[in-house]
Formats: sequence, C-alpha cells, structure tokens
Amino acid sequence: MTADLADRHLNLVPFVSVHHMMELVLEIGVERFLTELAAYIEEDFRRWEDFDKTPRVASHSREGVIELMPTSDGRHYGFKYVNGHPKNTREGRQTVTAFGVYADVGTGYPLLISEMTILTALRTAATSALAAKYLAPEGARCMAIIGNGAQAEFQAMAFKALLGIDRLRFFDIDRQATQKCLRNLAGLGFDMTACSTAQEAVEGADIITTVTADKQYATILTDNMVGSGVHINAVGGDCPGKTELHRDILLRSDIFVEYPPQTRIEGEIQQLDADHPVEELWRVIAGKAGGRRDARQITLFDSVGFATEDFSALRYVRDRLAGTSHYVDLDLLADPDEPRDLFGMLLRFPGSSLLAARRSA
Amino acid sequence: MTADLADRHLNLVPFVSVHHMMELVLEIGVERFLTELAAYIEEDFRRWEDFDKTPRVASHSREGVIELMPTSDGRHYGFKYVNGHPKNTREGRQTVTAFGVYADVGTGYPLLISEMTILTALRTAATSALAAKYLAPEGARCMAIIGNGAQAEFQAMAFKALLGIDRLRFFDIDRQATQKCLRNLAGLGFDMTACSTAQEAVEGADIITTVTADKQYATILTDNMVGSGVHINAVGGDCPGKTELHRDILLRSDIFVEYPPQTRIEGEIQQLDADHPVEELWRVIAGKAGGRRDARQITLFDSVGFATEDFSALRYVRDRLAGTSHYVDLDLLADPDEPRDLFGMLLRFPGSSLLAARRSA
Repeated sequence: MTADLADRHLNLVPFVSVHHMMELVLEIGVERFLTELAAYIEEDFRRWEDFDKTPRVASHSREGVIELMPTSDGRHYGFKYVNGHPKNTREGRQTVTAFGVYADVGTGYPLLISEMTILTALRTAATSALAAKYLAPEGARCMAIIGNGAQAEFQAMAFKALLGIDRLRFFDIDRQATQKCLRNLAGLGFDMTACSTAQEAVEGADIITTVTADKQYATILTDNMVGSGVHINAVGGDCPGKTELHRDILLRSDIFVEYPPQTRIEGEIQQLDADHPVEELWRVIAGKAGGRRDARQITLFDSVGFATEDFSALRYVRDRLAGTSHYVDLDLLADPDEPRDLFGMLLRFPGSSLLAARRSA
Repeated sequence: MTADLADRHLNLVPFVSVHHMMELVLEIGVERFLTELAAYIEEDFRRWEDFDKTPRVASHSREGVIELMPTSDGRHYGFKYVNGHPKNTREGRQTVTAFGVYADVGTGYPLLISEMTILTALRTAATSALAAKYLAPEGARCMAIIGNGAQAEFQAMAFKALLGIDRLRFFDIDRQATQKCLRNLAGLGFDMTACSTAQEAVEGADIITTVTADKQYATILTDNMVGSGVHINAVGGDCPGKTELHRDILLRSDIFVEYPPQTRIEGEIQQLDADHPVEELWRVIAGKAGGRRDARQITLFDSVGFATEDFSALRYVRDRLAGTSHYVDLDLLADPDEPRDLFGMLLRFPGSSLLAARRSA
C-alpha cells in the first residue's frame, strides 16, 4: 500500500505540514477520514497486548507541560511531541500543538514526520466516537456538547460519522464559543440548539460530551443533571488537577478508560480511590469485556488520550499518503556512500572548505 | 542574537537538513564549529544543576534500539531521537541516525528541528575534547585512536582544535577503516601512523581514544597496554553489554562520567560494583572537584553521551543559524486566526469540500 513511499532514497523522510494535512483531510473528506481513522484505532485497540506501553514523559513548568508519548507494536514505533499551555491563547497561540514521528523498528529509521495538532483533534474525536459505538445507548441521536472550544466540532463530526448523531445541544460559559460552533457546523446536517446552561444542554441528550479547557478542578456536570441510560464522553479532564464531573456521577457510572495507570493520574477518576474498578476500553473492543449492559446504565468514557491512538493516526496517515502529493521529502538522515564515512561525506560536500584547505596546503 | 528567527510567523519552525548542516559546519569551519560547540557544552555543564535530567526512554528490539533523550533548563527544552542498529551498515544504512528538537518552555512551541546524525558526531567529539582539556596530561600532542569508524576523524579534529593534538596513531581490525581515516585527514595538519595492533598504537600516546562499534563485550585495551600518566577517552562502550576496556584498567584509573545513573548502566563502569567511586565531569568543569592531579595518574573519561550535550548542540545551532540561509521553514504548527477555531481553519481552507457541501445544501 505504501510502496511508493518505501522505495526511496534512504536519507529522505516524508513530512506532512499543517497545509498538507488540511489537503489530505479535505481530499478524503472529514467524515470519511474520521471513520477510517476510527477503524485504525479500533484495530490497534484490538491488538492492545502487542504494544509496548509507557506513561508519557512529561516536562512540567509553571506555564505548562511538554510531553513525549512513545509506543511500539514491535514492527513500528511512534511518538508524539505535545505541549499544553493554557495561557497560550492569550498570545494568539494554540493551547495544544503537536507533531509526531512514525519509524521502522527494524532499522530505527523514521518513515514519517507529521503535524499532529489537527491530527490529534481528529484522533481524539475518532476515539470518543469509537468508544461510544460500544457504550452509547441504542439509537442515540442527540448529543450535548459542554465546552465549545477547538475540539467541539471535531467531536460533532465524529459522532455524526460513526453513530449518526444529528442533534446537538451546545453550552459554553463563553457564548462566542457556542456561536462559533453553530456557524462552523451550519449546513452540515445537524439540528443544533444553543443553550444557556449546562442543565439545559443535557435535557433530552443521549450522550453528554464534556470538553472544556480550563486547567482546574471544575464541576461542569453535577449529579442531578445526569439521568439514567446516558453515555458520558468526558474529554476535557485530562491532566492532574483538571476534572469536569462531580464525584457522585463517577460513583453511579460504569467507567471505561484507555490505560488505567495514566487515567488514574490524569482522568476524572483521579477523584476516586486508586482501586476503584474501571474497565479497559480495549477489552470491550476485543470482546473480552462487555460494553453497555442495559438501557438504564450510565456509561462513562474517561478519555485522556493515549499513545497508541497517536500511533494509529500516524499509521493511517502514512498509508493514506501513498500516491498523493500531500507531503514533502525532508533530507533528515545522513546517507554517506560508505556508512562509516560520515566525515568523508562532509569532506566531499561541494565547496568544502576542508578540501580547499588541503588543496592550498 | 536570534532576532531574525524569533520574529516570525507562529506556525513556522526552522528545519536544518543534513545538507544545511553540512553547509553550516563548512561555513563556520569544522575546527571553529567544534571549539564553539565545546564552549556551549562547557557552559551548560557548568550550570548542570539547572537541568531537568531523566534517563533516556528506550524502546528495545531484537535488531536495535530507538531512544528519546529529553532535557530542559527551565527556559528551553530539547530532545533527541536516536536509533542504534549495528546491522544497518550491512544494508547501506547508518548504525546511528538522529534528529532533535529545541523548544520554548514558556509556550511549548518548537523553535528548531535539526538533523543530528552529523551534529551528534560533532558533539560527541567536542565533549571528548572538552573532558580531555581538564583531564589529559599537560602538553599532550599524541593520541591513539582505536576503532577507525564514523566517529574517528571527528575525534581527531576536536582534539586538534581544543588541545592541539597533531600526532595520531590509528588501529582498527579492519585496515580499510584506518586507510579511510588517513585519506580523510591527509593535509589537515596531522602526523599520522597506521598501526598493526592496538599495542603498537598506544606506544607513546598521551591520550588513548577507544571508539569501536561492535555491540559486545570486547577488550580493546588490556591492562599492560596502559602506562602511567595516560588519559583514556572511552567513547565506544555506550550501551548495556558493550564495553572496550579490561576491568583492571578501570581499577587503576580515576574515572570521570557524565551522568552516573546512566553511565553505570551503559558505560565501561557497568563492569564495576554499583558503588565504585566516580567523579562527575560537570563538577570538574564547575570547579567543585579536581581534574588531573599529577603526571602519573591514569584518567578515564567513560563517555556514553548525555541529553544535555544534545541540548547544548541544538542551542548552538539555533544561535548560529540566525542570519544564514542554512534552514528552511516548516509549516509544522496549526495557527488559526482564532486559537479556538481549529475546525474553522479547516473549513475555510481554499477548496474545502466541507464548504462546498454546505454551499450545495
């Protein structure tokens, strides 16, 4: 599938810029991209035990965090560089930006470098919708989205693509954020309502997505707002000290997580005892555990984002890149004629002053 | 100093390819580059306690290893991706390739992406020569280089630039490797001798550099070969199971290392007890510990390469890049007009099919 990317000069690594990623996503189509990406994520969750899983490597500072998220399935290796700096938006920067690398374990050579700000937004939404496929109530059509920032529309598109959600109820403490969602999603097949409170937003919703951005303990949802049978897709609580749900909601819910050692630190369940029972999403997808049991059960996907999802996203982009022009080649790897002659490569570089020095000597 | 790199579009990150790195190195000049780079490394060793130090994050496989080496001084963050695959040379690939990223801790935004195969060769040699500046016997002029692979000439150039070493005695089990060194360094100011044995190579040498490449326990130097007063620069033993020196040499030497927790696993001292006394190079450089004590002492720099050296190298390249044309800008970071409107950026991308779908609706 990637023949035309594989059979190349050894020094070149394909690079997908933000511009190229937008071209690729739009050429494939957002909904199809999300659907295919979710299938890659699903496939990799199904073979979860193949992956080498390590917690992220975080470098914390007063203003934010820079993290490296590596993983490998033994044949390929992927990592994502991602930052989280809530104050960035005040300076016109993104709170979260990211890029990633996909490499061949057999040679250690990178196979792809890609922007991952847009790609992470897509994989987060695809993972949410994938989890909901197993956990949301049958026939769900209406979703509340609380927190209408950068991730909101991606969630809407993924739930439309994978579950057929076509009714959206928005709430944000900033009305402009809600208006932005209504504007961006207009004409794309949704029946949309802007709500004045979170309480109003959840009325009649089969699925509640919480995706706020503040880095603090907040209670976006209180216990009385959550009726039986609902699926909660909790995306915003994703680092120590940042949660969105009241603890009592967690105690009434069956909780599904990506990688428990990471979620216990970063997710909503940081509010619970370290041994509070949770189910791993991969076990549900692999058929080793049940998903939704009955129509009255409250299910909660406590999503924090895991390295395998980024791996799946890079794997998907790499496969989809073949035959397109949505990348450029970077001269990233030194490739001397004789592998041990790295110095000679420098020496024989056109116009080398070393050579000139020798000639004049 | 980096004004023309800093005052730019937020989405762009300068990228230094292999081609650009060669241009930059040759424009500055190899010896000057090594001297200036060593000064950056020295400066960062001197403020060692500012750095956030973590062991490398390694992903091992049957054929090799892929590692991430992050560090931060609280203002900037750097990491290197590096592989080690000894079998690669049989397929015309490099055993070790690398690239690195330098970022702003305050925003989490990358400031530089650079090839680091050539840069690592230079920083390894610069670090060796820097250590020798504090540890080699006074007036040293003659160095034995045992192991004449990709790193050998860089070591020679660094020792010439920083210490004035101008006599080289080469040995490698592969005569072609030695011939390559003689060829590459001809006319660059060295008096060079090709030797038939390691024993012959060390005769009269003030400094012995061991830099072989085999991934196995090997004894390049036996105890009887090492006379008093010598400085040993042990570069090749750099991973678990790979050493070059007989244990008895270590027991007679004063040993200097970069970061003890890493060197105890990867360096020559993996042969010694976990509590065998070693001195940290940064303490010598910062004046907190002595270097060479007397003319009879055997000093040993057990070098494995540490993340701060890569940080220094990226910091140097970033500073030296300003005002040159030795980079291209990568469109790596999404930069929507309104930070929270990532989806809108996709929506308004020229030729967006989303917009088209809406127009026809």
